[in-house]
Amino acid sequence: MMSVQDLIRKKRDGKTLANEEIKTFIDAVTNKTIQDCQTGAMLMAIWQKGMVPEEVETLTREIMSSGEVMSWPKEWAGLVVDKHSTGGVGDKVSLVLAPALAACGCKVPMISGRGLAHTGGTLDKLESIPGFNIHQSAAQILEILGSVGCCIVGQTETLVPADRVLYDLRDATSTVNSLPLITASIISKKGAESLSALVLDVKFGRAALYKDLDSARELAQSLVHAGNLLGMRTAAALSCMDAVIGRCVGNSLEVMESLETLKGRGPEDLMELVTSLGGLLLQMTGSVSDLSEGRRKISDAVIGGAALSKFQAMMEAQGVANETARSLCSAHSDYYSVLRKAEHQMELKTPTDGEVLEVDGLALAEVLHKLGAGRSKVGEPVNHSVGAELLVSLGQRVSKGQRSTVMGASWLRLHFETPRPTAGQIARLQGALTVGTNTPTHTHTHTLVRELLPPQ
Amino acid sequence: MMSVQDLIRKKRDGKTLANEEIKTFIDAVTNKTIQDCQTGAMLMAIWQKGMVPEEVETLTREIMSSGEVMSWPKEWAGLVVDKHSTGGVGDKVSLVLAPALAACGCKVPMISGRGLAHTGGTLDKLESIPGFNIHQSAAQILEILGSVGCCIVGQTETLVPADRVLYDLRDATSTVNSLPLITASIISKKGAESLSALVLDVKFGRAALYKDLDSARELAQSLVHAGNLLGMRTAAALSCMDAVIGRCVGNSLEVMESLETLKGRGPEDLMELVTSLGGLLLQMTGSVSDLSEGRRKISDAVIGGAALSKFQAMMEAQGVANETARSLCSAHSDYYSVLRKAEHQMELKTPTDGEVLEVDGLALAEVLHKLGAGRSKVGEPVNHSVGAELLVSLGQRVSKGQRSTVMGASWLRLHFETPRPTAGQIARLQGALTVGTNTPTHTHTHTLVRELLPPQ
Repeated sequence: MMSVQDLIRKKRDGKTLANEEIKTFIDAVTNKTIQDCQTGAMLMAIWQKGMVPEEVETLTREIMSSGEVMSWPKEWAGLVVDKHSTGGVGDKVSLVLAPALAACGCKVPMISGRGLAHTGGTLDKLESIPGFNIHQSAAQILEILGSVGCCIVGQTETLVPADRVLYDLRDATSTVNSLPLITASIISKKGAESLSALVLDVKFGRAALYKDLDSARELAQSLVHAGNLLGMRTAAALSCMDAVIGRCVGNSLEVMESLETLKGRGPEDLMELVTSLGGLLLQMTGSVSDLSEGRRKISDAVIGGAALSKFQAMMEAQGVANETARSLCSAHSDYYSVLRKAEHQMELKTPTDGEVLEVDGLALAEVLHKLGAGRSKVGEPVNHSVGAELLVSLGQRVSKGQRSTVMGASWLRLHFETPRPTAGQIARLQGALTVGTNTPTHTHTHTLVRELLPPQ
Repeated sequence: MMSVQDLIRKKRDGKTLANEEIKTFIDAVTNKTIQDCQTGAMLMAIWQKGMVPEEVETLTREIMSSGEVMSWPKEWAGLVVDKHSTGGVGDKVSLVLAPALAACGCKVPMISGRGLAHTGGTLDKLESIPGFNIHQSAAQILEILGSVGCCIVGQTETLVPADRVLYDLRDATSTVNSLPLITASIISKKGAESLSALVLDVKFGRAALYKDLDSARELAQSLVHAGNLLGMRTAAALSCMDAVIGRCVGNSLEVMESLETLKGRGPEDLMELVTSLGGLLLQMTGSVSDLSEGRRKISDAVIGGAALSKFQAMMEAQGVANETARSLCSAHSDYYSVLRKAEHQMELKTPTDGEVLEVDGLALAEVLHKLGAGRSKVGEPVNHSVGAELLVSLGQRVSKGQRSTVMGASWLRLHFETPRPTAGQIARLQGALTVGTNTPTHTHTHTLVRELLPPQ
């Protein structure tokens, strides 16, 4: 058998690793018989030299098999689905989509992550709801899926242990954005959920990991390919991530916006994403005949309130007090009676008359991150109440903010505590808004989902 | 200041690291504030992307400055010299060269290494002499150089700590053969010795790290360049390493051959290397006017016995009992009264009549390594008595080995203990000898030193 040094040397020199060799590497990672320096060197060699599709498939499969692989009751065959997003600003799709899919008869064991740097995490958002417990064992997940149909939980200790090791080391060694490593990390986790169907929301644009459509498409193709090879029907949507999704960014603010959406009052761009991704999944499970029927069915579940009931039941199943859950889900909820409101709010004035041409989601997210909405290191706490509400939409006519103006005076409401925003941060936020007289180059509604990659 | 991740990313992308950034990296290695996975990734990034000469210079300087830098009495200015070899089979040059240089008035603080894999180490050879202590403090080194003029010692704890960390990690991560990393490792150590002049013996050929002259020349140029930039006059010899140097391979056998050489009875190829490398050093210190005068001066010191006296004094200064040292240095020494003889000897017969065309030094070294003459892991003991004596020279006429033949019956005498050689190992040894009727393609004497790279 080859030594770890031999394996590193082989990838270092750009050669293709055999299945058995990839298995040796992942086994060594799982059993901690490889030195961290060696894993770091191997990750860098993979970053530099890449992997052929066969290597990516084996890497994904071996990481998946490094821990428990979930199993479901026979009667759920074809119904177990999930979504993965590569991370957006204000991306609260999961909070609406999971209960909507459950309302359509799917089983959704959504295993989510926490936020890091400028991207938010679904788990952090949910934890702004008092009592919400993201720690659920495999047995509890099974029970909640049986009774409710969906749950949103953190990764269990027993799932994909090799991925947890590699994920931390990739972060430390600047080898995160490697196509084979991203593919194996995402798809192995979903494979361990034993899904029937998986939809991927691959973001491109200013506020996304990939800035351009072509590289996002390359990642989407790699993910779809690996997912299908692992036996999940896998499709992807390529969606634009220049600005923010919806109007709210920040953990508790996004929970409020999700609840508003589940009450039929959500922003158009968020609904568009939810119905596209959900419709694709329903199509893949065979419960609808085409995408438009799937979209309609998801939309009906959201607008009609069935998804809201599922969300309420999910909250209760995951530890939220009945009264709290009921209060959040009532038609005219006073959200701040349950969710913590930041100590301070500040409105930024619209600087000039014109149309809203652009909102720089990355600038917004980076300032909020520094104000405590996000974390810089794994394990750090976040301040759930910090965030921002966009008061304008792309394409909207606005006028220069003056005290006498009722409409259009402000474009952003900032929620903050300690640290307070510096003058530089406020200037950065103000610079995130572009107002002009040109026709806007794009609006959310038309370009949010640019392309769909169907399962192969 | 850039984070370690930023530094890795920069080199990962093939950019040039600024001096301050290389300092940050080496400081982090020295202070152990960098994670091993990060060092592994950085080493692999350097292996993949290389370094420009300015980066190599800074890397070398920073590794040198990671620990103590030796200082010498003013009156030694211009006299402190050393040699470094990239590793050969049967390479006992240091044992003859250090005392010869001391006999010529130089100060030689030779800091050597141990053997690993098929290459032997000078320290292991010397430790086959009972009492020889390679552990000497900086103060003791200063004292021995004052009284004797030369010492051969192990690396002290205080010298180049960053190199010790990187050296181990390079081995673990398959990043040993990287030009910038090799250069920085070798030259930083010599820089910390505060040398006036340094000569490098860069080997190429079948039994060397570099198989061809071109890549050896590239390494030599990198080393000479870095050494001169650090303020040492630095030159290099490119020498052929297909077969073995001299006739003996193995720790105590090589000590015997070195003593024979110091008594004026050494093999021609060893003397050629000693006088070339020593002559170059004398030329660089300015104590002779040209290379041929330098060679003659070194040769005289060896042939005339002055070098032998220095070797005897060095042994005594480094812990060998006077009587032992005197016995080893007497004209007709019974070496085995002092040095341990292996339990078993075996002679391999010459298979056919003809001329000795080739001896494969690598095959010889690899079999001896497996029989205990070398180690596979740092820290393992070696068996000093295991080795082999070549009984023929390149170009020599030999006849098929038969009991009745006195001369030319055997070509190799193997010294072994436990483990005993397997049939496969004996076959490999036998295969190391090529006898034929063609004119030999080369002999030691003519091509041992192929090129000289003078200081720039």
